[in-house]
This record gives sequence, structure tokens and C-alpha cells, in this order.
Amino acid sequence: MTGLSPFAGRIIWALKLKGVEFESVEEDLTNKSDLLLQSNPVHQKIPVLIHNGKPVSESLVIMEYIDEVWNQTCPLLPADPHQRALTRFWAKFVDEKGKEGGEAALEEAHENLRILEKELEGKKFFGGESIGLVDVTFGSFAKLLDVLDEVMGSDKKMIDEDKFPLMGKWKEQLSELAVVKSCLPPADKLAAAVQARRNESAAA
Amino acid sequence: MTGLSPFAGRIIWALKLKGVEFESVEEDLTNKSDLLLQSNPVHQKIPVLIHNGKPVSESLVIMEYIDEVWNQTCPLLPADPHQRALTRFWAKFVDEKGKEGGEAALEEAHENLRILEKELEGKKFFGGESIGLVDVTFGSFAKLLDVLDEVMGSDKKMIDEDKFPLMGKWKEQLSELAVVKSCLPPADKLAAAVQARRNESAAA
Repeated sequence: MTGLSPFAGRIIWALKLKGVEFESVEEDLTNKSDLLLQSNPVHQKIPVLIHNGKPVSESLVIMEYIDEVWNQTCPLLPADPHQRALTRFWAKFVDEKGKEGGEAALEEAHENLRILEKELEGKKFFGGESIGLVDVTFGSFAKLLDVLDEVMGSDKKMIDEDKFPLMGKWKEQLSELAVVKSCLPPADKLAAAVQARRNESAAA
Repeated sequence: MTGLSPFAGRIIWALKLKGVEFESVEEDLTNKSDLLLQSNPVHQKIPVLIHNGKPVSESLVIMEYIDEVWNQTCPLLPADPHQRALTRFWAKFVDEKGKEGGEAALEEAHENLRILEKELEGKKFFGGESIGLVDVTFGSFAKLLDVLDEVMGSDKKMIDEDKFPLMGKWKEQLSELAVVKSCLPPADKLAAAVQARRNESAAA
């Protein structure tokens, strides 16, 4: 289900922020296409961006590629080398912690959120006044968690605004961006996916 | 032992390739300094580069920073965006697989080396005609493994030139570079470290 992957979501956000027209190809990860296997033979994972016939893999690498090729609109990385390094540091942090995901104990996940909450102090976005690489890297993931909360009807939120008020405000501000609105996975599609996953588990 | 860390080694290689003067501060990882804890509070790990009083952490992030700040000499990344993306892809691959290190089964480690061997086809260095980001990322690690082989007197090499002839040649070509020669951990220092580690294990 490419459409629900937060890793694929990052690329869609980035392309939309840049105003780049693209075609999104859904991938059945239980039956990978030849195109995916040929485009990303090493990891055989989504997302892959194919531009001018040439594939680029790994979501952080793809986002930097997008930022370099379409460098006139909405910079994802700041210009100053030290600020760029900090941006890459936090994008890597979010990427790695997000991938650990379910494996990390809840306490560790909260500690990571506390670290990120501190990083938001005095800023509208992680990127400062405007959305940047860290916002895109974390944002598509955070919004997916929100929609999941909604679909599952959880009374306890995965990213709890009471505990992390700056992050709550950050998510609100993200939601106001047109490009983010147009990217959210529809709740009904997600609900169907969650139900399918449950049926699979029940059948297994 | 900062001096033996392949992650710190990358930064030393990169700075030497750029001809940047620097001071290397050894860090006792069993008793971390306040400077390290303040400079990299999130991970509390080496290496950290402090430039103009500002710290940068994570070896891949530091190398990109070095490449951006000292951009006139020995580019670590190529100019073309697609080539840059491929370079970042492989640097990430080597970094992640190197970190898995001992955890990965031997068969998996060999599969990774096979993938890298293929990537060297028709090239002198991973960076093409000259040393680049992937060479530095992998090189300081590969050379350390070689010195370790020597110190341990292993009859089986960790990176076996018979199985991976292109990589064998690549290591020879790396060794010819003055900057690499000046960076190798002295065998006697390494021998002492290995012996100390053994004594610790025996005492534990």
C-alpha cells in the first residue's frame, strides 16, 4: 500500500511543495513489480523516484535530490552549511527513530518526542518560519499517526498534545498548509487497510 | 579510543583530504567528557566536529558539512544531482551495514560485500577516478579491518581479496594515497587495544 507509507508520503509532500507534476504508481508490496526490483535492486523498497528515466532510492536521499533539482521553490534545506548540517542531523534522527517505531519501548518513544519537542522551542516549524526537510520527514509520519488514532478510535493519542504542546501546535500549522491537506491518506482508505491487516492477523 | 574508531577516522580522512588543519581530541568513551556531552547531547557519541565554536555530529552529516565548507579542494560529492544521490545512497548503505557489523551473520556480510564489489566494476574508486564520500565512509573501516587482521594474525581475512578482487585492488589504491597512509591506526596501538579488550573480557 504505497499510498499509506509515510516514507512514500515524504516524497509526495516534497514534490507537491516544489510544484512538480508527477505520477504516483501504487506498489503491491506482497508482489513487487519488476519496475521496483529493477529500480531499487539493493533494498527492493519503496519509495523510488524515477526522474529522466533514472531511479533514486531512500527517502532522505530522494528528498535531497528533489531539493537540488528543483532549487527555485520552497527550499527544504537552508543555505548556511551549519544550519544544513543541523537539518540533516534532525532528519536522520526522525528517520531512524521512526523506523525503529514499534520496536522501541513506549518510554523510549516518549523520550524521542521530548527531544523533538525541545527542538521546536521558539520555532513555527522545525525548518524555522517555513516547512523544511525535518518537517516533511516527520510530518507525513505524524499525520499518519493522527489519522490512525482517528480510525482506530483510540482514546490515547500516539502523539499526545497535552504532553507535547509545541508539537500539537506544529501539527495544526502543518494541517493549514494546502499541500499537506491534499496529501493526507483518506480516513476511509486507511480504515479499510487497518481492517484488512486485522483480518490477515486473524487468519494467520 | 577515538583514535581507532572508523567513524572518527572518516572525519580525519575528510579533513586531511581537504587540507584543513585541525586538532583531534581523544575521548575516553567509558568516562565521557563534558565537551562531548554538551556537543552531542542527543547521541553522546563520537565523532563531533567543532568548527567556529559550533558542533556538528553524525559522521555522514559531518562529511557533507566539510564538503560544503571547504568546497574548493577534493570534492567528496560529485556535481551532478543524480550522481550526488547515488553517492549518498551508497554512503548510507556502507554506514548502515558497517554499524550492523558484528550483529550481521557472516553470510549477510558477504552478500553486502558482493553488492559493493559490483558497484566498483569499471571504477578506480567508488567516487570514480578520485576518492569520494563512499570511499572515505567505507575506507577507514576497511583499512581498520585489515590492520585488525594483521594484529590478530588471522589466516582468514575479513575482506578477502580472493573473493573480492576489485575491492582488493581498491584497497591497494587507497593505500597509495598519502592522506590514507598518514591516517592508519598504528598496528602497535591497535594491538594494545585488542589485548586490553581481551583482558577486560577475561576479567568480566
